[in-house]
Amino acid sequence: MPVNLTAPDPAALHPVAGVEIGTAMAGIRKAGRRDLAVLRLAEGASVAGVFTANRFCAAPVLLCREHLGAGQGIRALLVNTGNANAGTGEDGLARARATCVALAARLGIAPWQVLPFSTGVIMETLPHERIEAALPAALADARADGWALAAEAIMTTDTVPKAASRRLAIGGRTVTVTGVAKGAGMIRPNMATMLGFVATDAAIAPELLQPLVRELADASFNRITIDGDTSTNDSFVLIATHQAGNAPVTQLAGGEGAALRAALTEVAQQLAQAIVRDGEGATKFITVQVDGGRDAAECRQVAYAIAHSPLVKTAFFASDPNLGRILAAVGYAGIADLDQTLIDLFLDDVHVATRGGRHPAYAEEQGQRVMKQPEITVRVDLHRGAASASVWTCDLSYDYVRINADYRS
Amino acid sequence: MPVNLTAPDPAALHPVAGVEIGTAMAGIRKAGRRDLAVLRLAEGASVAGVFTANRFCAAPVLLCREHLGAGQGIRALLVNTGNANAGTGEDGLARARATCVALAARLGIAPWQVLPFSTGVIMETLPHERIEAALPAALADARADGWALAAEAIMTTDTVPKAASRRLAIGGRTVTVTGVAKGAGMIRPNMATMLGFVATDAAIAPELLQPLVRELADASFNRITIDGDTSTNDSFVLIATHQAGNAPVTQLAGGEGAALRAALTEVAQQLAQAIVRDGEGATKFITVQVDGGRDAAECRQVAYAIAHSPLVKTAFFASDPNLGRILAAVGYAGIADLDQTLIDLFLDDVHVATRGGRHPAYAEEQGQRVMKQPEITVRVDLHRGAASASVWTCDLSYDYVRINADYRS
Repeated sequence: MPVNLTAPDPAALHPVAGVEIGTAMAGIRKAGRRDLAVLRLAEGASVAGVFTANRFCAAPVLLCREHLGAGQGIRALLVNTGNANAGTGEDGLARARATCVALAARLGIAPWQVLPFSTGVIMETLPHERIEAALPAALADARADGWALAAEAIMTTDTVPKAASRRLAIGGRTVTVTGVAKGAGMIRPNMATMLGFVATDAAIAPELLQPLVRELADASFNRITIDGDTSTNDSFVLIATHQAGNAPVTQLAGGEGAALRAALTEVAQQLAQAIVRDGEGATKFITVQVDGGRDAAECRQVAYAIAHSPLVKTAFFASDPNLGRILAAVGYAGIADLDQTLIDLFLDDVHVATRGGRHPAYAEEQGQRVMKQPEITVRVDLHRGAASASVWTCDLSYDYVRINADYRS
Repeated sequence: MPVNLTAPDPAALHPVAGVEIGTAMAGIRKAGRRDLAVLRLAEGASVAGVFTANRFCAAPVLLCREHLGAGQGIRALLVNTGNANAGTGEDGLARARATCVALAARLGIAPWQVLPFSTGVIMETLPHERIEAALPAALADARADGWALAAEAIMTTDTVPKAASRRLAIGGRTVTVTGVAKGAGMIRPNMATMLGFVATDAAIAPELLQPLVRELADASFNRITIDGDTSTNDSFVLIATHQAGNAPVTQLAGGEGAALRAALTEVAQQLAQAIVRDGEGATKFITVQVDGGRDAAECRQVAYAIAHSPLVKTAFFASDPNLGRILAAVGYAGIADLDQTLIDLFLDDVHVATRGGRHPAYAEEQGQRVMKQPEITVRVDLHRGAASASVWTCDLSYDYVRINADYRS
């Protein structure tokens, strides 16, 4: 059961001028489900992406890097679920390349103008011929309002499709930001088995796109964790079609540029949080905030130690205020000169620990009350500086084990 | 169900001259179980220890460091289960100190000659008065053959007591090595919620003891992981009573010194492996061996990435040869210049992957056969150097979640 997350209303997902989406049933892993999506981009679109830090990155990730490195001019994204084409060596690379060649031939573009994405089981051979056979159906299906179907077509163990959309005015023109993502497991920073695709029709200086996609990822997908595993296939792509008719945005620090950045950040964060809300087996949505660090990096380090701890996560699943486990995670986060006698711990508004020990006024019932909520904020104050960081995570339940023990069956 | 582990035969646990052990029921957390152990050491014993790297270390750990730092002369170890006295601030320290004072008064020694150890729930007030009230019973119970009872008295979620014993001849004298440990969860290097106590009656130069206990820990307790959590209380103590009558061992590199070191290593490794075999919810005992690294540190880093991955661990639980998850863990282990096209992966004798992709001769049935075994060796060859490292771990099962969600109830 996802935590406070329902399928998006297709009518609320605004089309992005210059993006058409078609989906098809390619039978890649299972018959009878949409498992292929093609995003066609109008000529002139700008595309930037960030990809997994996993050194065992999948064949499609290698090709994305290669194709984006070849210069601007991306005209299509080809996404399949059911098979990650990772851990597949040279053969996997050849198969991913073949799908780009096939789509490019049908669109009359060059293969490097296609970005391929795969998600699903690792170390299985990609049935590229099934993808190629389904391309005509996907292209025939292409439509501006295909976002909801795309959100479905990229799911793996997701139980709810994930999409978000915003509109704003820039220079009197309506600008749209719409995106989809998939996640579920193998989720942690840098990045998750997540695919995220966000498009805007805003005109924006192309050189702003690559730093912007990095910044958006750091504010969203790189702040979530489900099980601490970093996937081989994580990809987050930002598309600007420049078709909204606004005067091009040339800076993002203030005014309309800042408004666009805010809308993009909202969409990316909503998608990232949706991944956590629908984390494998999740029953709780937990924000871990660490304040009072010397720098943001050490705050993140502590936040992730808490968010990754199986003991902390099972306590949340049980609604058990066994909160010493949080202190233990703070202690092993790797800050060599941490002074435990300075630490404060809060659970929502409840002051649980102070100076490294149980707060004198803390009563178990208070912790119990908060632990029963579906959404909880853990806040730790290190009292050694002014920096902060927060990450989002979920609990660890029986269902996480069930889902991952059964994933291939 | 522990993996290939049964309770030790008390008769096989040889007494160590100069060590007497008494246990008692102090009712620290639950009534009617042995939860207190006192190890009395004869005058002249040497003691060395290694303790948790967790910065949130527990009050008893702080006192152990303080008392061992006061010089040699330790005469008693006081161990309780049911309460970790961690995350308890100044008050916890005062309570731990009070138990040392009480035991010292009964034994006619100074408080700094007592080392205290606690394991159990974190951030709960230690009922030190119950410990003090039970001291007379524990001391009255003191006996040379108390090792099996000690192994029981220190258990938390352990399902099987853990002890090991060896005898060897040094200079015509019989020398004994006997030890006990507890573990179960919150187990990872540096170190586990583990307590380990190993004693020998061998005469050995006291200055050898501290480097030796570090070396033993690195070869045993620092090579295991269950859930990646590092406890606040981990302690491993080595005791030498010098009473066997052998000519003192003055070096450990060869001859009889090496034989003693080997016996101590065997006992420590048997105890460490017993902790994994009895890991919370464990159904499989897994050795992760990484070869071909540039140095042992990077091999350990890769081995722990595999051993900590919830996705890898749930696949082992399911006996599912979803082995791409192992490659994914190798990829995110943090070796920045790893070349995935060099990697070999073996499951026992089965060659699963080569050059970063599925081995052409690998068939799913082969992986399936090995995955069904209770003991499995995963071997990764990085092909970038000559170093190796191995760690021991277990799978992640429904029962891990159940145990940790219910721990305090």
